Amino acid sequence: MPDVRIKTLPPPHGGKLVERVVRDPEMARKLMQKCSAVYDIKPTLFKGNPVRNVYREIMSVCYGFFSPVEGSMTKADLESVLEKRRLTSGWVFPYPILFDISEEDFKKLGVGAGDWLLLRLKGEPFAILEIEEVYEIAPGEVAVRTFGTPEHNPEVVKVPFDQKHTGYNIYCSLNPIILAGKYTIINEPKIRPPFDRFWYPPKRSREEFEKRGWTTVIAHQTRNVPHTGHEALMKNAAYIGDIEPSHGIVVNAIVGAKRIGDFPDEAIVEGHEMVHLAGYIKPERHLVTFTLWDMRYGNPIESLIHAVIRQNMGISFHMFGRDHAALGEYYDIYATQILWSKGIPSFGFDAPPYAVEGGFYLRPQNIAEFWYCPKCLEFAYSANCNHKGIYSRYSGSFIRGLINEGVTPPPQIYRPEVYKVVVKWWQKFGYPFNNEKYLKEREERLEVDLPHMELPAHLKK
Amino acid sequence: MPDVRIKTLPPPHGGKLVERVVRDPEMARKLMQKCSAVYDIKPTLFKGNPVRNVYREIMSVCYGFFSPVEGSMTKADLESVLEKRRLTSGWVFPYPILFDISEEDFKKLGVGAGDWLLLRLKGEPFAILEIEEVYEIAPGEVAVRTFGTPEHNPEVVKVPFDQKHTGYNIYCSLNPIILAGKYTIINEPKIRPPFDRFWYPPKRSREEFEKRGWTTVIAHQTRNVPHTGHEALMKNAAYIGDIEPSHGIVVNAIVGAKRIGDFPDEAIVEGHEMVHLAGYIKPERHLVTFTLWDMRYGNPIESLIHAVIRQNMGISFHMFGRDHAALGEYYDIYATQILWSKGIPSFGFDAPPYAVEGGFYLRPQNIAEFWYCPKCLEFAYSANCNHKGIYSRYSGSFIRGLINEGVTPPPQIYRPEVYKVVVKWWQKFGYPFNNEKYLKEREERLEVDLPHMELPAHLKK
Repeated sequence: MPDVRIKTLPPPHGGKLVERVVRDPEMARKLMQKCSAVYDIKPTLFKGNPVRNVYREIMSVCYGFFSPVEGSMTKADLESVLEKRRLTSGWVFPYPILFDISEEDFKKLGVGAGDWLLLRLKGEPFAILEIEEVYEIAPGEVAVRTFGTPEHNPEVVKVPFDQKHTGYNIYCSLNPIILAGKYTIINEPKIRPPFDRFWYPPKRSREEFEKRGWTTVIAHQTRNVPHTGHEALMKNAAYIGDIEPSHGIVVNAIVGAKRIGDFPDEAIVEGHEMVHLAGYIKPERHLVTFTLWDMRYGNPIESLIHAVIRQNMGISFHMFGRDHAALGEYYDIYATQILWSKGIPSFGFDAPPYAVEGGFYLRPQNIAEFWYCPKCLEFAYSANCNHKGIYSRYSGSFIRGLINEGVTPPPQIYRPEVYKVVVKWWQKFGYPFNNEKYLKEREERLEVDLPHMELPAHLKK
Repeated sequence: MPDVRIKTLPPPHGGKLVERVVRDPEMARKLMQKCSAVYDIKPTLFKGNPVRNVYREIMSVCYGFFSPVEGSMTKADLESVLEKRRLTSGWVFPYPILFDISEEDFKKLGVGAGDWLLLRLKGEPFAILEIEEVYEIAPGEVAVRTFGTPEHNPEVVKVPFDQKHTGYNIYCSLNPIILAGKYTIINEPKIRPPFDRFWYPPKRSREEFEKRGWTTVIAHQTRNVPHTGHEALMKNAAYIGDIEPSHGIVVNAIVGAKRIGDFPDEAIVEGHEMVHLAGYIKPERHLVTFTLWDMRYGNPIESLIHAVIRQNMGISFHMFGRDHAALGEYYDIYATQILWSKGIPSFGFDAPPYAVEGGFYLRPQNIAEFWYCPKCLEFAYSANCNHKGIYSRYSGSFIRGLINEGVTPPPQIYRPEVYKVVVKWWQKFGYPFNNEKYLKEREERLEVDLPHMELPAHLKK
């Protein structure tokens, strides 16, 4: 008769929250003095289009979302991650986190191990990279090993990854030189509206949970403006807890480079916020947050970075549905649930990630499908509803189709208040979904502004 | 990173399932030979009306629902249960289980400790009581100590129990002589339709769960034909589990003496069955069962007998709502949730019953209210819906009122197929709810028939 009550938030992944943000300008000035070169952060391009910006990784590392990772990975860590999804310290970590640079830029900078590099964003000092090691990668090989292959990972990889897969393209498009070392933000960026009010890095989210008296919290992964199916998933999954349903429901939107046809991130965070503003979930039970990350669409692999982020934020449970963070049909549609229910040995998991050495305290809530059933008169759970032939799956693409045609979706599918949020950003951007113009402008604008900070004299040319 | 997966059904309460049913007629014959007297089981009457029949307790004991209890309690066990809700063996048990008999009958029988008494039901041999001890009780005192008082149990008892409380009346109406000892059924009763197909004593229910591949199962306590609010509670509470929602949802109806105005038990079990027949929950996820027990309406105390019954059946989780198994306002409406979240020291629980020595493996799912919200367009959970002033609580009495007026309830409140079950039994009994005529006839009919079995010669007079 063990006491099953969950009495505290889970510990940070790796035991300690990373926070590498210098807020004292005097200290920042001194640190910049130690830098031997300046480098302007550039987006990663695929066929001329931005698919990633390393600044997002720097933000997520320095604010602790990716604890215990403290910077760009060494060759040993990279190898360990690709080989067994573990850091050399033994903690589970799924993706290469790398500061990549072209040979040309590397030669121009003239830096090496032991040097500090000042990273500039939007023309202002932003962060320091303490170079520990310089090494080369073969980007195509990193890409293949990151996502797996049907030969090596027959449990879940169905077809080889190719250029139709955005995440694969991100790794293929990396520069070949890696500067490994810790990041430190020395000029704290100002988050732009509307994102600013959703900025809950792990330290702050944990303070917020404690203030609200939450000890059990469930995460909802999102890259969508929520329709009622998402809302049903969110609310129903949250009945997991300890001896009562989860105290808190935390939406954590992944904000970063996006694809044409996705909803704009601005509409996503405000759409989720409207769920509590309009009273469908009480505001005191619901918190909308975001993390900066250019989605890799790695399904089971992506679920691991979600677990890292959300356990660090203090979250106890994570709902995983069908086709989690997936794109195309590279992975089995249940790959994430396979990982979180029995493990995927070829990816280094003989047991689920909550049951392995170096794994997570966060627990999965593996959940099946929901569909709207006119007989049940609700978004029905597929393990319950037996009304074959009469229920409807309102897929994201179906709803995007409706909206695209200018049809106001019925309230069973879309809360009218949430739909108004879509319309608000549609009016602002001239189109309800991301188009090329939006993507270009947004990657110039980014999600942050940098306060002006004087460059030390020795770094001005 | 402990493995949180629940891999087996919980063990029986007390470690071992009691099964005291002799199915071999030759053996039954031999056992009857050892009996020194015959006694015809009679209902317990309060003001001339049947409020309890000890045969139900004998059934629940011998088929293992009340494991580890094996019979009518000794004085030491009774004292221990009243004092600290534990058997002398240390296992939690909430209620006195007693074979009571009048002084007159006791004298007539001429039995004592060491004698075996043959118990007859509906004119046929039914069970044997191996008398171990004979002692006297003061029924009123047992009643008061069973339910508690505002003085002794200030945490949850609001007003003294009185004759408006059916459970209190049951204990007050006991005969003063207790024959303590083990029960053995020697003539297995035949469960009458429609109850027969819902008869899943612990051994059978565990076999059924295993056949279905269930390792996580949640219990729904019922004494109602389910309206959609009950259905929402049942389905939503079931999202608790280990790493995925509970595999099975088990309705366990309490069948026994009832009150005027309740639904007939026949409509209750068939109404719940209709929930899966009509596809609102898949039949493979849903099992309707019942236990014979004359409800004591003991709110927190009753929740403990529910835990005993359902853990013995192999159930892992139990949903506990507001006013659990309550009648009137004797207890705090949250008394059961108080017990199952922090314990009630005055009743012997310094910690919740899942966290004490001798307690349960079954875990609570303490759940708040549901109400129908026309804005949410669903039965909304009170921790979510913030639409004050527009939602409706459809209480059992409201719905009974509707039905009583001949109004067909709307499908948001009552599934039409379930309502047809109400109408079916209404037509059969001439009234939708229990009236005096039904209660009288039903207590004569009981839920079982006894096959004919010859009385041994020495017991025929």
